[in-house]
Amino acid sequence: MLHLNRNQLTEMPSRYRAQLVNSLSGFKSANLIGTCNSDGQTNVAIFSSVVHLGASPALVGFIMRPDSVDRHTLDNIKQTKQYTINQVGETFWQKAHQTSARYLEQECEFELCGLSAEFIAGIDAPFVEESQLKYALTLKQIIPIELNNTQLVIGEITDVLYPDTALKQDGYLDIESLNTVAISGLDSYHVSERLARLSYAKPDAPAHQLSLDGSKFDNTHEG
Amino acid sequence: MLHLNRNQLTEMPSRYRAQLVNSLSGFKSANLIGTCNSDGQTNVAIFSSVVHLGASPALVGFIMRPDSVDRHTLDNIKQTKQYTINQVGETFWQKAHQTSARYLEQECEFELCGLSAEFIAGIDAPFVEESQLKYALTLKQIIPIELNNTQLVIGEITDVLYPDTALKQDGYLDIESLNTVAISGLDSYHVSERLARLSYAKPDAPAHQLSLDGSKFDNTHEG
Repeated sequence: MLHLNRNQLTEMPSRYRAQLVNSLSGFKSANLIGTCNSDGQTNVAIFSSVVHLGASPALVGFIMRPDSVDRHTLDNIKQTKQYTINQVGETFWQKAHQTSARYLEQECEFELCGLSAEFIAGIDAPFVEESQLKYALTLKQIIPIELNNTQLVIGEITDVLYPDTALKQDGYLDIESLNTVAISGLDSYHVSERLARLSYAKPDAPAHQLSLDGSKFDNTHEG
Repeated sequence: MLHLNRNQLTEMPSRYRAQLVNSLSGFKSANLIGTCNSDGQTNVAIFSSVVHLGASPALVGFIMRPDSVDRHTLDNIKQTKQYTINQVGETFWQKAHQTSARYLEQECEFELCGLSAEFIAGIDAPFVEESQLKYALTLKQIIPIELNNTQLVIGEITDVLYPDTALKQDGYLDIESLNTVAISGLDSYHVSERLARLSYAKPDAPAHQLSLDGSKFDNTHEG
């Protein structure tokens, strides 16, 4: 094991440090955020910082950077209070990555990146048609993080679109079966291979393997 | 595609909703957070909410739930201002999951879950010896999220421990080569298979594939 200390981190060239530090948090979610402004101009941009905040109410957050090429996302969310989050899948991950290019506000990332906007009744923000698991949110709060001038944007989930085949009997959505991708570092994309689901851990016995639908796995002896 | 609306989400049994909503954010990072209290009692607990906040300064956040079995983690961080984040790997993911059991404060999760504490000079918090990529942090800020009584805990990275083989020439750490796992939902664990690294996206040409070390990929024609 090698050891990098704080001085070495600070003195790294900034692009090198960005690659390294972005690798440290582990695998990241890959999501496209769809918005439109008050004139109906759509925008879609990839984010790797979407994070679960709570199930009741159903809250999801993401981090907005000050220097982001995706600043139109936040401008639009402030205008309409609505947005969509669309999981990135194996069939369109390169197109999703391309949305991170610095397009002009009046340019349409959907068209320029080869993605399709999809609308449902009652939601002004566009979904990404190619995505197999997606949901609409209403803006609840924007929390400034003054340490580095970023913002935590928090929304409440109002509508979920999903294929019936992915939903298991206990509520788990099998995102691996939807070929949802993960990101590492700034630019590496990955598909997944399940090790197993595990039962809720208790202090008096080791957690056991579950079947994919959340029921007890046949080959597992109880603790 | 099926469509769940807000009323249907609200009326779900809470465990079912927890499984479903936890599946929506996409793949999550799998990390063990190591702490000790001011008496030197160690604690280690798994978190799936570690999120990159910025590279300069190198800031990482995680979400602390109010009802968490891992409340000792935050108590200890408040006492010592130090903690470690350790990526969970394929050789010990079941042990990592087991740390989520509701152990008593005086019980040692390291011992009870079969993990080994490792210390380096200058850092009071324990690392997880089994982890192949890990780092120490100093507490910078705790931001309350009043919407659901959670907290965003922010630390600055001070020391990084990594194997030489994982570091690529541009600073990217190949966490797939370290068999780092990802989580989906509440309890599903996954290893990864790389699709590719992609170049920084520009508006005038599609991003191209990079080799693993970040250089231009031989077989890719330029845009």
